Amino acid sequence: MLQKLRDISELQIERLKFKPVLPDVLKNNVRLVKPIKGRRTRSVADQSEVKGFFKNTYGLPVVTFKKGRNINVKKKPVKVAVVFSGGQAPGGHNVIFGLFDGLKKANEDHVLIGYLGGFAGILDNKYKEISKKFLNEYRNTGGFDYIKSSRAKIETFAQFGAIKDNLEMCKVDALVVVGGDDSNTSAAMIAEYLKQENIDKCIVGIPKTIDGDLKNQFIETSFGFDTATKIYSELVGNICRDANSSQKYWHFIRLMGRKASHIALEVGFKTQPNVVLIGEEILAKNMTLANVVEYIADVVVRRSLAGKNFGVVLVPEGVIEFIPEIKELIFALNDVLADNAEIVASILSTEEKTKFICGKLSSNMSDLIMGLPHEIALQFMLDRDPHGNVALSSIETEKLLIGMVYKKLEKLKKEKRYTGKFSTISHFLGYEGRCGIPSNFDANYSYALGYNAALLVLNGFTGYMSYVKNLTKSPKQWECGGIPLTMMIDIEKRLGKEKPVIRKTLVNLNGKSFKEFAKKRNMWAIGENYVFPGPIQYFGPASITEMTTKTLQYEHVVKK
Amino acid sequence: MLQKLRDISELQIERLKFKPVLPDVLKNNVRLVKPIKGRRTRSVADQSEVKGFFKNTYGLPVVTFKKGRNINVKKKPVKVAVVFSGGQAPGGHNVIFGLFDGLKKANEDHVLIGYLGGFAGILDNKYKEISKKFLNEYRNTGGFDYIKSSRAKIETFAQFGAIKDNLEMCKVDALVVVGGDDSNTSAAMIAEYLKQENIDKCIVGIPKTIDGDLKNQFIETSFGFDTATKIYSELVGNICRDANSSQKYWHFIRLMGRKASHIALEVGFKTQPNVVLIGEEILAKNMTLANVVEYIADVVVRRSLAGKNFGVVLVPEGVIEFIPEIKELIFALNDVLADNAEIVASILSTEEKTKFICGKLSSNMSDLIMGLPHEIALQFMLDRDPHGNVALSSIETEKLLIGMVYKKLEKLKKEKRYTGKFSTISHFLGYEGRCGIPSNFDANYSYALGYNAALLVLNGFTGYMSYVKNLTKSPKQWECGGIPLTMMIDIEKRLGKEKPVIRKTLVNLNGKSFKEFAKKRNMWAIGENYVFPGPIQYFGPASITEMTTKTLQYEHVVKK
Repeated sequence: MLQKLRDISELQIERLKFKPVLPDVLKNNVRLVKPIKGRRTRSVADQSEVKGFFKNTYGLPVVTFKKGRNINVKKKPVKVAVVFSGGQAPGGHNVIFGLFDGLKKANEDHVLIGYLGGFAGILDNKYKEISKKFLNEYRNTGGFDYIKSSRAKIETFAQFGAIKDNLEMCKVDALVVVGGDDSNTSAAMIAEYLKQENIDKCIVGIPKTIDGDLKNQFIETSFGFDTATKIYSELVGNICRDANSSQKYWHFIRLMGRKASHIALEVGFKTQPNVVLIGEEILAKNMTLANVVEYIADVVVRRSLAGKNFGVVLVPEGVIEFIPEIKELIFALNDVLADNAEIVASILSTEEKTKFICGKLSSNMSDLIMGLPHEIALQFMLDRDPHGNVALSSIETEKLLIGMVYKKLEKLKKEKRYTGKFSTISHFLGYEGRCGIPSNFDANYSYALGYNAALLVLNGFTGYMSYVKNLTKSPKQWECGGIPLTMMIDIEKRLGKEKPVIRKTLVNLNGKSFKEFAKKRNMWAIGENYVFPGPIQYFGPASITEMTTKTLQYEHVVKK
Repeated sequence: MLQKLRDISELQIERLKFKPVLPDVLKNNVRLVKPIKGRRTRSVADQSEVKGFFKNTYGLPVVTFKKGRNINVKKKPVKVAVVFSGGQAPGGHNVIFGLFDGLKKANEDHVLIGYLGGFAGILDNKYKEISKKFLNEYRNTGGFDYIKSSRAKIETFAQFGAIKDNLEMCKVDALVVVGGDDSNTSAAMIAEYLKQENIDKCIVGIPKTIDGDLKNQFIETSFGFDTATKIYSELVGNICRDANSSQKYWHFIRLMGRKASHIALEVGFKTQPNVVLIGEEILAKNMTLANVVEYIADVVVRRSLAGKNFGVVLVPEGVIEFIPEIKELIFALNDVLADNAEIVASILSTEEKTKFICGKLSSNMSDLIMGLPHEIALQFMLDRDPHGNVALSSIETEKLLIGMVYKKLEKLKKEKRYTGKFSTISHFLGYEGRCGIPSNFDANYSYALGYNAALLVLNGFTGYMSYVKNLTKSPKQWECGGIPLTMMIDIEKRLGKEKPVIRKTLVNLNGKSFKEFAKKRNMWAIGENYVFPGPIQYFGPASITEMTTKTLQYEHVVKK
């Protein structure tokens, strides 16, 4: 009997009963799952520099689990720790669930603890033991609330040392890091540090991010992307239907997703709105802000000629960083703010403050900012992130574009090239999707990633990321194993310093997904080809409940 | 075989197969469904004035359909028209679907047409015949896109005359108006006008609005409220989970719903966030803006003392009209803008414009507006609705409250009564829910409302609203009939003139729902009693798929 420990919804009650499907290869007794090592690997770029940073963990082989006798698996009880790092993604609790089941099935005496609140929890030595009782409340649920998360970063040798000390004090044999590119970079560095110090502990990463920018041939997608994009697609589809019912508004929808435009592309496929901006394309074509505005205004004008003064535009939040002049403006503003922090803080009037800041900018930059909608110009000049920089994530790019497109249309009106109406509504979708109840896909996938991580740990692999692939097949047929974290690393300049980091995977303009989109977008622009995916379904026909993302379908379809 | 006429989602394909459950009483042949008339009715208030306006349609009896011989039902083919009026609500297409089935089952030669784009479609004589083929694409779908809608209002005798002429020209025997309080007021007036002109046509209304403010003992809820609040609850639940996972943000979420706070109350029950503002309570307690801000700040401080610098606040969009001083400010600004429209338009600088407007306000009002967050003050002063008034719906009340609470907390910090952090994120949920795929409840309910309307028409009732009640029972047991539209009407002053209008039903502070909420909210404020309803499910256990709203459960539970 499931006990109702607190007020929970009817759907929560049912989801607690869901049993994730384990890939066949992981179903066997741990001594019948054999890790097959492939060839030595190389980093995605900058091989010699990356090797320099990872002397002990560079070049490890890819590992694939197959059915087979395995006598090397750890037999004595181990203590494994898990930590969430960075933003939430649907499926986090199922990683713990899978990890727990994987360990306990191998040996009831294996122990799993969870560090609380991200890497900060390791530094502060705050953790709790994961018990079946607690886990029973969190199976197949969204959120990271069981052990929380944080954006605390691990970068310095002092921090590596502190982590080593605390892992040793706690007698932790292995640490599983559930995170995105930055957190898994930390995982790689901790693994290297421990090897270098001759400490026998395993560090294993799990690919987590709704942004979808952590992927390669083994990591076909990160967990959470499926659920989050399904939630955004539900909402965007509803907004498309609203636009087409009242036929009087242009909806500009900004979508979360950091730098890359994967979310916008996936949601675009699922809903077929009139305009989908792709940051990577804007960069590749070196489009100015004016070009982007013209592109949208052109669709507005063409639809208006057909009597259609409504539509839907998707704006990935990262777009702002891809427009060269805006990027330049951000750099310039950050410099001005850094050099004049005290003066700026001392000016009380908004008017005076903005005058002062504009005075410090080049005339180009000053013209650019004065040409932005007033409200947005203020966001650029006045909002600060915790480091004192322009607060990128709070800049309402959708409103910026509305304002600029409006101006452009006014100009076209004067030239008698446009006679339509341009009433707009803006939206931002982000936090609504990061903690959704994981789709069956994400529930299965994150469970498998966790279960598989347990096997990597029990086989002594460190500096690896858990991978589960062939995701367009049924979960029973998924392939499992580990890839060396160093495979994904290159060297990037951050704050003027060369650093090894896991390379973000941006939208590939030569990839199948983008090409498919490029083929269709003109039709979407002019017509009302809107598709309404509706809410995620956990029950009912498999065509709905077991659906994967369009991105996966285009990029990774494999023969059944 | 369902043909895929255009790109549609997997869920759309499945929803087309859904067969709404018809109430038992409507299942019989139309000649075996007998309308039982009750006693004469009276209007909800201002009886003699309302009677003066509705000389021919006042005081009609309530009608209940029961099993029984009925020889009075119309036999020769009739032509019925349907029109959507006002904002979208999930279930609109199913009203047409039910109406169509109700008519066709009675006589295959009955005809249904749909006027396009609201009342404007009747005035412009734009319509299309509803055919099975087209309807097959729209069954159980969200949106009003099949025949569109608009906010065109029918109020003048010239309009009544034009409507009469066009209905006659089209040989329409009956008009079914799908709308909210305003549109059904128009329906009542058209019915009265036609009676007065001795024209034998039936006008029947259908209660539509996501706002939930069109209800009484017969209209237990309007269609669309169930689906829209379920969608908002999904999102608010996800945001609660996000807040509790990262534990660093206060989320302020404004919810659509016009004046009344029904949506906020229902979403509050489903998700149990920390603060839910109820406009009607603010009015009843005569709370000032400062009081509302103090109320929220108090919860922020209390949570912060427990180390919890995060939470979720629900803000109904109508709240702004309930705060006496803000209401006064809006009136004052509307006056200033009306009296000085040209001058204001001629001033180009934002700074100068706001100075000018403030100069025209009383010092009280000017102080109030200068005390608002800058961005919001600009919205009050610069944004205009199509009538030149303050654009209420675009005022970001959630940001207004964030700004004011922030100021209050800064003050408390100086007084050493608060030491927490107050990082915030704002949201507005509205358009995301108006066109969702209707829940099973709304699909059944709106189908029954439409089917039942066909019976009212075939029995010659005019000036009635279709009602379907006992909604907490299974759909088979629902009771059906009609209530006179005049029952819901009172006299209100609008733009200085006394007018008969259907009275909006606000949240009843003495009702069971509000009392239940008042009992629980303190617990919600301090704890993390968040509930995660998740997305609407159309398949699976009945506990999920057949769930009605909490509001209905509190207000209308009847013994099975």
